[in-house]
Order: sequence, then structure tokens, then C-alpha cells
Amino acid sequence: MNVHNRRPPAPVSVTTGPVGGSRKKYSSPRGHDDVRVPFREIAFDASANEPPLRVYDPCGPYACGEFTPDLAAGLPCARPWLATRTGLETYQGRAIKPEDNGFASGEHLAPPCPARRALYRASGAAPVTQLELARTGVITKEMIYVAHRENLCRERAFDAGAARIADGESFGAAIPQFVTPEFVRDEIARGRAILPANVNHPELEPMIIGRNFLVKVNANIGNSVVTSSVAEEVEKMAWAIRWGADTVMDLSTGRNIHNIRDWIIRNAPVPIGAVPIYQALEKVGGDALKLDWDVFKDTLIEQAEQGVDYFTIHAGVRLAHVPLTASRVTGIVSRGGSIMARWCLSRHKESFLYEHFGDMCDIMRRYDVSFSLGDGLRPGAIADANDAAQFAELETLGELTKIAWDKGCQAMIEGPGHVPMHKIKVNMEKQLRECGEAPFYTLGPLVTDIAPGYDHITSGIGAALIGWFGTAMLCYVTPKEHLGLPDRDDVKTGVITYRIAAHAADLAKGHPLAQERDDAMSRARFDFRWKDQFDLGLDPDTARAYHDETLPKEAHKAAHFCSMCGPKFCSMQITRDLRREAAAIAERAKGLAEKSAEFMEKGAEIYVKA
Amino acid sequence: MNVHNRRPPAPVSVTTGPVGGSRKKYSSPRGHDDVRVPFREIAFDASANEPPLRVYDPCGPYACGEFTPDLAAGLPCARPWLATRTGLETYQGRAIKPEDNGFASGEHLAPPCPARRALYRASGAAPVTQLELARTGVITKEMIYVAHRENLCRERAFDAGAARIADGESFGAAIPQFVTPEFVRDEIARGRAILPANVNHPELEPMIIGRNFLVKVNANIGNSVVTSSVAEEVEKMAWAIRWGADTVMDLSTGRNIHNIRDWIIRNAPVPIGAVPIYQALEKVGGDALKLDWDVFKDTLIEQAEQGVDYFTIHAGVRLAHVPLTASRVTGIVSRGGSIMARWCLSRHKESFLYEHFGDMCDIMRRYDVSFSLGDGLRPGAIADANDAAQFAELETLGELTKIAWDKGCQAMIEGPGHVPMHKIKVNMEKQLRECGEAPFYTLGPLVTDIAPGYDHITSGIGAALIGWFGTAMLCYVTPKEHLGLPDRDDVKTGVITYRIAAHAADLAKGHPLAQERDDAMSRARFDFRWKDQFDLGLDPDTARAYHDETLPKEAHKAAHFCSMCGPKFCSMQITRDLRREAAAIAERAKGLAEKSAEFMEKGAEIYVKA
Repeated sequence: MNVHNRRPPAPVSVTTGPVGGSRKKYSSPRGHDDVRVPFREIAFDASANEPPLRVYDPCGPYACGEFTPDLAAGLPCARPWLATRTGLETYQGRAIKPEDNGFASGEHLAPPCPARRALYRASGAAPVTQLELARTGVITKEMIYVAHRENLCRERAFDAGAARIADGESFGAAIPQFVTPEFVRDEIARGRAILPANVNHPELEPMIIGRNFLVKVNANIGNSVVTSSVAEEVEKMAWAIRWGADTVMDLSTGRNIHNIRDWIIRNAPVPIGAVPIYQALEKVGGDALKLDWDVFKDTLIEQAEQGVDYFTIHAGVRLAHVPLTASRVTGIVSRGGSIMARWCLSRHKESFLYEHFGDMCDIMRRYDVSFSLGDGLRPGAIADANDAAQFAELETLGELTKIAWDKGCQAMIEGPGHVPMHKIKVNMEKQLRECGEAPFYTLGPLVTDIAPGYDHITSGIGAALIGWFGTAMLCYVTPKEHLGLPDRDDVKTGVITYRIAAHAADLAKGHPLAQERDDAMSRARFDFRWKDQFDLGLDPDTARAYHDETLPKEAHKAAHFCSMCGPKFCSMQITRDLRREAAAIAERAKGLAEKSAEFMEKGAEIYVKA
Repeated sequence: MNVHNRRPPAPVSVTTGPVGGSRKKYSSPRGHDDVRVPFREIAFDASANEPPLRVYDPCGPYACGEFTPDLAAGLPCARPWLATRTGLETYQGRAIKPEDNGFASGEHLAPPCPARRALYRASGAAPVTQLELARTGVITKEMIYVAHRENLCRERAFDAGAARIADGESFGAAIPQFVTPEFVRDEIARGRAILPANVNHPELEPMIIGRNFLVKVNANIGNSVVTSSVAEEVEKMAWAIRWGADTVMDLSTGRNIHNIRDWIIRNAPVPIGAVPIYQALEKVGGDALKLDWDVFKDTLIEQAEQGVDYFTIHAGVRLAHVPLTASRVTGIVSRGGSIMARWCLSRHKESFLYEHFGDMCDIMRRYDVSFSLGDGLRPGAIADANDAAQFAELETLGELTKIAWDKGCQAMIEGPGHVPMHKIKVNMEKQLRECGEAPFYTLGPLVTDIAPGYDHITSGIGAALIGWFGTAMLCYVTPKEHLGLPDRDDVKTGVITYRIAAHAADLAKGHPLAQERDDAMSRARFDFRWKDQFDLGLDPDTARAYHDETLPKEAHKAAHFCSMCGPKFCSMQITRDLRREAAAIAERAKGLAEKSAEFMEKGAEIYVKA
């Protein structure tokens, strides 16, 4: 790690253009031309003689070659059917108040995003959320969308039959060989998956979060104290999804958060998550004791109208749980958790979030904002993992999940944190049990505390494990965790690390499509197709740059070696030669197969054990 | 990852000086003043009111504040008792031949290292290797050394009783609460651990590799084609151990390898491993078909006399195994493996390494060079993991392990490679079964192939898992794997990543000392002792640099926040305030404890489930 000179100049525009040598494309399922599902296609050198590989891609139109973003206009609508969805009404939204932007004014006030959309909410009791619709048997366009999206790269695996799924251990998940819209509907109806999609976020390219789908990755962004421009904030989101973030949480605090959030959502093809308590706290001048249901409710409506797709709600931090943290090494490490703990303890009252949980559901249902039930008492140290406070809160979150479901709201559950490897599995099992298989969404977990500066790795290990065990979405951690605000390089490193963890989990679970990309990479390696290797990687730019550091010439892209072993010691080249020799030997001596059989038989006498 | 400007100028000298704010110290077990066991001591800010923490440290005198290396003289002797060990004789060694240095001459010939040591070998059949001595009941000075070394940081845990060990899952390992010299002797005698220590490597600070000891890390180094100076080659070794490599393998090829190896070993406080087939191949002009037992035997003796502590020997690649690789996606990816496969197939003869294995043992025994039985047929792709070729070779390695043991030689077994998470455990189980619990030494494994540029992470995930399952030593992988020759930054990143994996495994196995460092870090975090956090980390320099990027001032080292959340949103600060408030409330209302009990009781009614 070169820690100096890491800081590029602040970007003035949003990064666009193809990722590596791939091409962004769209595909519609038969009979649904309005459902345009994105993917990236990686084509190979002609010598490979294999069809292009399709890969799942969350980064929206930004990766299209011809796309020029117009931030003021926002992204084009990806859900045209919203305009005709029944059960919705348009209405005049809440007026923006000075406190929404932290009383910023004059030159300190970031301009509002000029893009305007029709404002929707449920008009009555008719089903509106994906959960309500799924329960009534309706297959929404969003469900058709995500089914096609999850399948897109699966066709070859599907043709190959069930072998790939059997080659995995999914710990009781129910991963289908092929995802049908009906399967999606059923998973949502049972609460085993969520499709976070606020009715006021038409720019969203729908995606699904659940144990029986591909493991997803979330990246957090947030304005800095010295925030510069709205373009820079949009760029943070676009940069994170470029490298593979499936959802983005905006953890901004301070001034201008309403207007900045507007710019982000209008330009976001992925679900945007937020933590309303942060903004609510700003509205009461940063004094946790002044928080109450009214200001919180106002904030929920404000953010729901903007199009936030899921809210982290720390309603599991109850008064009775606070004393359970007293003997912890690092106490409460969740911001939302510590705010609520302080509120409860100082007032000696039950949490208003817990007490108004049903009211919250009624609001969120109208916009189909999903719950991300926050783990305000997650452990912040190996020493505090799996303790009474953590598990008491998880039990409360299970209770709240059922209330959310009863009210028609989609819900996922946030998880730890800091957990050593041998204590990870019990977290997953308890979450599934307490929360009725609602999707788990974990931060890491970090499997050790001793490597500040490398916590993308300490947590990537835990993320791969818990993803394998059944976590549906992994919240990334950057190298700057515990040390400072991540920059652009850190965000990319965090996202790539978590894509590795998610993919490793998909492979181990036996997702039918997952190994196609690994196999394509391995073939490219054996054939010394360097450019194909770069393009197939999660980060083509870095792979190419690393290769070119020692072998920069264009001719080296076809070289049958790399600088690690050099031409004479390349085992793959030796193997290729060896195969040619073997073929020649086989010609001479009545075929290699017979010889092999002969020697394998001789060998077998030695190898067979009791 | 900033991939540009990563290349610092070539180092002209060997890196020395303290790691972070730690101090290098030595400790002798009672009654053994000649056994000086190194460790690093991390002292804390006075406000912490806790004793310094001792951490295991492999980097030799280079981390001492006052040490100035004299490469021509080599390191001081760390095993003075060798001079009086029975069973050894001194003798006139093999003369250096032009081919030892690849026929380099004149200005192209690297100078020999002037440091000269007495040359030892076994004089006869009397026990000489650590294994032979252990079997006859002798506790060597090396065994006393490693027992003290493994215990050094364990004292507090020892005082705390057995709780820590119970808090782990070791999958059938037999980790003791406290390591006695007798335990070490017994583990070596049963072949469950090796103590690689060539009698001609007096500079070595003994260490042990086995499932019931701390998980160790190996780093590979090697000369580049454009090798510059012997100091640069020594620096590669010193740099790798500075960040925590417990052993170093010299994978050099080409000219000057004899002389360069001499410089490295004379200046190495860690065991040095080598792959004799690489040098043997150089001696026959790079033509694998010209290899034979004579040139190989000559190379073994040459390297044993220099003091190499373990040899990778690919004797498990038998003629009968070669056809098993025919349908692989990436064939044979081990250099040694592909060389031997080519030799076997072209000559249509059984491997001379396999056929002369007993002779090899007789040579290696005389110097106590340990076997690292190479996995020449390890998979090079997820697609090839756990296939017939890999497992057939592993069975042969089990057979060879028993021969080595019979001949008095220590042995460990090399393992894969590329393996998805769900196929890792069966590798460990099969290795333990086939190889009679001899230590496993694995490369990664990489759990996916799709992230070139990040294979330290894809493999770090696998390494943490297999280390937990029982692997004794993890061979690092750098970010440049599959792309090119690692530079200084890559080596450091690889070593730190593997120290994370090894430590995560130690934690999960329940090593009694392991969590002390995590806990110290967590306390430092909660107390906002920034300097202590840096010093406790695996890489203090990077942690400090990351922190200082946004908060560079000295005053910020005492700040009760970092730039990630800023002062107002620091949950730890809120928790501290909360504890103060709680204490005040407790004063007012007849104690927090009673209140807590009251509320926990109320809470319990809600939480109790069937």
C-alpha cells in the first residue's frame, strides 16, 4: 500500500464509460418490452472461440459508451409502469423547510435539484408495496425485472442441468436452478426477500435482496464536513456502483442534506438507503434529548417523498437493553444506537421508535419504503461479540419484523459488526430463527481488531463467511474504517473487496451461474489471453496496470508468460508443451489413454488405503 | 488502490529500526541464559494504566533501535549450543562450481558473502534432527526456545485460566493452555510439528510449525531478471519479516543464485526455504529432460551446506498422475510440478524424485533440512479444485511422509491453491488423515478466480478458513499474483493480509493469547488513544498515515473522534457520555443496578420465546 499521493484531485464530473473492455447492454423478457434489464457483456479474443460472457451490473447507464449524464435532469425513468399502477395517488408534497438543509442559506445553500417527478403515495388500503402485491398474488413488473436480471447470466448453467447447484453447500437456502417471476413473488410474499423500490424513485433499476438470490453489496457514502459540490456527491454514488455496489446508503449529516440527497436519488439507478435519525438529530440542533416522534415522523415523510428506498430504523434499542452494554469493552458503536440509548436513558423512557413502530409502518407502507432494522447494539469489538445486548436487540428486531409484515412493509435486518470466525454462524442461525428468514444485511463482520488500515480485509473474510451462511447483502468496509473518511480509492477498494466476498459466497452456495466467470477467467489464463483476463476481472484497470508495470509493451499482451516466473519457468506454458508432447507420445504408443489406464492401475495398488 | 507511482526507488540498504512505537526485547527462560527469545513490546499511554503488551516477532535484530546490520559479517549467532551438539562433525564442504551461479563471471558475478561459519553434518547414525532427538526423549535448546517463544505473550491468558481456550473451535487440534518444552518435544516426535533448523543456519531464531501452535506465515522472495545488488535481495527478506513473515522462501532462478542465497541465509533470523529443482534445472541449461538424480543430489548438498532450512520437493508428481491432469482447465500450475511431469512423460519413467526419495532423506537428515512436500499438482483454478490429480498426489505425499519419518526427517505438506470455500475443509481433513497429522502448509487457497489485482484478498479469505481448520503455515499471495513480479508494497500488503488470516485463525481456534491484542486495541479505541491504536496494529505506519490524511495535527491524536463521523456523531463519545449520565442517574435513583434488573425483567417477558 502506497499511502502517499493517494489523493487524486476532486472530480468535477461523474465518471462514465465502459468498465474495462465490456459493453453495457439491455435485455427484455419476452412480452415485456418496457422491462429493460441491464447487464455487461465481456467479449473475448477471437482465438478463444467462445461466446461473450454476461455479468450482472448495477451501475446504470453510466457504463454505457454513449451516455452523457445531465445531473439537473436526473436519470431517465426505468419504471414507466409506475404512472399507471393502481392504488397510488399523486398529491402535493410536504414543503421544504429551512431545517431540512440544516438552515443553510445564501452561498452556503446547495441548490435544489431541478428534476421534478410526479409525487406518489398509496391512496388507501389497496395493496401498494411489493409485499402486499405479492401476497395478493400479483406479479409486478419489478418482480419480472429482477427475475430476468438474476437469470441473465445463468443460461449456460441452466442448459448444463442441475450439476452446479449440487456442487455447493447452501446451509438450507432454497436456491432455484432458474429464477421465475413466480419464485420472486413467492419469496417476497414470505418475507424471505425484499425488493426495495420507493414509488417515488422511478429512476431505479429494480434489484432483489434475499438468501436465495445472488449476494448483494452495499456501499456507504456521505458528505464531508468540507463538502464541495453536488456533482462530487453524485460522483461518490456513481463511483461506488461502477465497481459493483448494488445499493448505496447516504449517511450524510450536517447542512444541505436534503438538497444533496435529492441530487443523488434523481441520478441513482440503485436503491438508496438512509438513516432518518441523523437528519432528525440535525433538525433539533444535535441534542438527542430533543428528539421526538413528531420530528422523526416529519423526517420520514420528507425522505420518503424524495424517493429513499430503505430506512435504517434503530427501533430495537430499548431502554431495557441499555444496561446490558455497561460491561462492554467498546460500549455502543452504532451512531443511531448510541443516540437512542442516550435518549432512553436520559428520559428513562421506552424508545419512541419502538413505541411508534406501527405508526412508522403506516407511513413507510404508503411509499413502499423498506425497513432495514438497525443493529444499534452491534458489537464494536471481538470482546463484545454475541453478547447479551446484541442478542436481546436481535430478538426485538424479530418481533418488529413481524409487525412490519403485518402492516404490509418489507423488512431486512442489519447485523454485526465485529465477530471472530467461530462465532459467525450462530449469528446467522439466530437471525433466521428470530426474524422468520427475513434477509440479513451485515456490516462485515470484522474477524479481528488488530489491523487498522486493512479492515476491508479483516471484514471481507467475515463477509465471505456470513454470505456463504446465508446473509443476503453485505455492507462494505473501507481501508479507512476506524481511522478517517474514505476517499475515492478507499471506496473502490472496499467495493471490490466486498464483490469478492459476495462472489465467493455465491460460489460456495452453489449459485448456478457463479462459476461461469471463474471458468472463463481460468481458460483465459491457460490461453495467455491477457486482455480477456483484465476484462473478466472485477477491476480491469488495476489488473492491467499491475501487469503493465513490468511488461508494458503491447506485444506482451500475447506473451506466453508474465514477469512473475518469466518465460522459462512458466508452468502453464510447460503444461501446454507437455500436452503437445503427450499427444505425440500417444500417437507413437497406441494412445495415451491406454498407457494412462495401465499406470493408473499400477498406481492404484500403492494408493488404496483402508 | 493507487496503482501509479507505487514504485519507490530501489532501496540501497536494509530497513531497520523499531516497528511503530514498539520496542524489541529478549527474554530467557529460567536456567537457559543462552536462549534469548525475541519479542516486541508495545507500551501504552500513561492514561491507559495497563502493562505493555508483548507480541510475537519474527523480524530478528533488524527491529532493534540500535542495530546496524553488517551484511558481510552476517547476523550474530542465535544458537551458540550448536558448537557443542553431539552427533555432528565439521568437514570441508563441497567446492563451489561455476554452474552454481549459472556460469556468471566477471562483472556479472555477484560476490560471495564473506561471512564464514563452521560447516556441520551428522557424523553417523546418532540422533541429529529435531525429530530424532525428540523421539529419543531429548529436549533440545531449540525446543526450549520455541516453547518460551509461543508462551511469551500468553502469561496474562494463563493467569486467567482456561476460559479463553474454551471460547474457540479448533476442529480436533490439541492446543495447550501453556506450551511446555515437553509438549514441543512430544509434538515433534509424533510428526505433528516441525522445527525447521538446518545445523548450518546458526543465525536462526528457532520457530515451530504445527497445528497446536500459533499459525505461521511464509513469504516468497526471488531475484528479478534485472537483479541489482545483493543488498537489495537481503532487503527483500528483511522487509518481509519486518511485517511478520515467519519463514521466507527464496524462489530465485537464473544467475548468481548460489551467492545471493548465501547473503540471504547469513542475514536471516527466520527459516529459509528453497526449491532445489529450480537450481538443478539451471545447472542443466533449463532442459527438464536433462535432469537426473546426480545433479539433483549435488544441488541438495550444495543448499544444505549453505543452511537452507527446508526444501520443497515435488516427489508426489508420479508418472501415473500426469494423465489425470489432461482434462483440467488450467493443467499443472506448479513450476516444479510441471517440470517433473514433463520429465516423467517424456522419458516415460517414474519420477526420479520419487524413486530416490529414501536417498534424499539420508542427505537431508545429516543437516536436519526439513521436507516441504510440494503439491506439484495443486489446482490452478476453481474448476480444478479437489480433483483426482490433486488428491492422488496428496495420497502419495502421505506415503512419502511416513518414509521421511522413518528416516528421521521432519516433514510438512504443501497444499492448494485455488479452492472455493465449500471445498476447503475436505482438503484439511484428507491431509490430516493421509499424512498422519503432519503440518499442512497451504498457498491461500484463493476462493475465486475473478479478481486479478486482489488475489491477496481472494486468497486471504481461504487462508483464514483453512488456518482455522488446522493448517499450520500459510504461504502468502500478493496483489500481483497472476499478473507480475511483486514489488516492495506488494510484499508488505501480502504479508499483512496473511498475518490477518493467521490471527483470525488463532482467534477462532481459541489460542489462549490471541485475543489479548484485540482487546488492547478495543480498549485503546474506546479511550481514543490514537497512538496506541497505531502501535497495536499490524501496520502502524499505514494506520497513522490514513488517520493523518484528514486529521494531521498532533492535537488530533488526543481527539475524541475521527474524521469518519466527526465530533458530533461519534458513537463511542456518546457512549462515554452515556455512561457518565448513567452513573449520575444511578446516584439519584438508588443505583443503576436495581433499575437495570427491573427493566431487564420487564423486557424479558417480551423476549422469551418458545
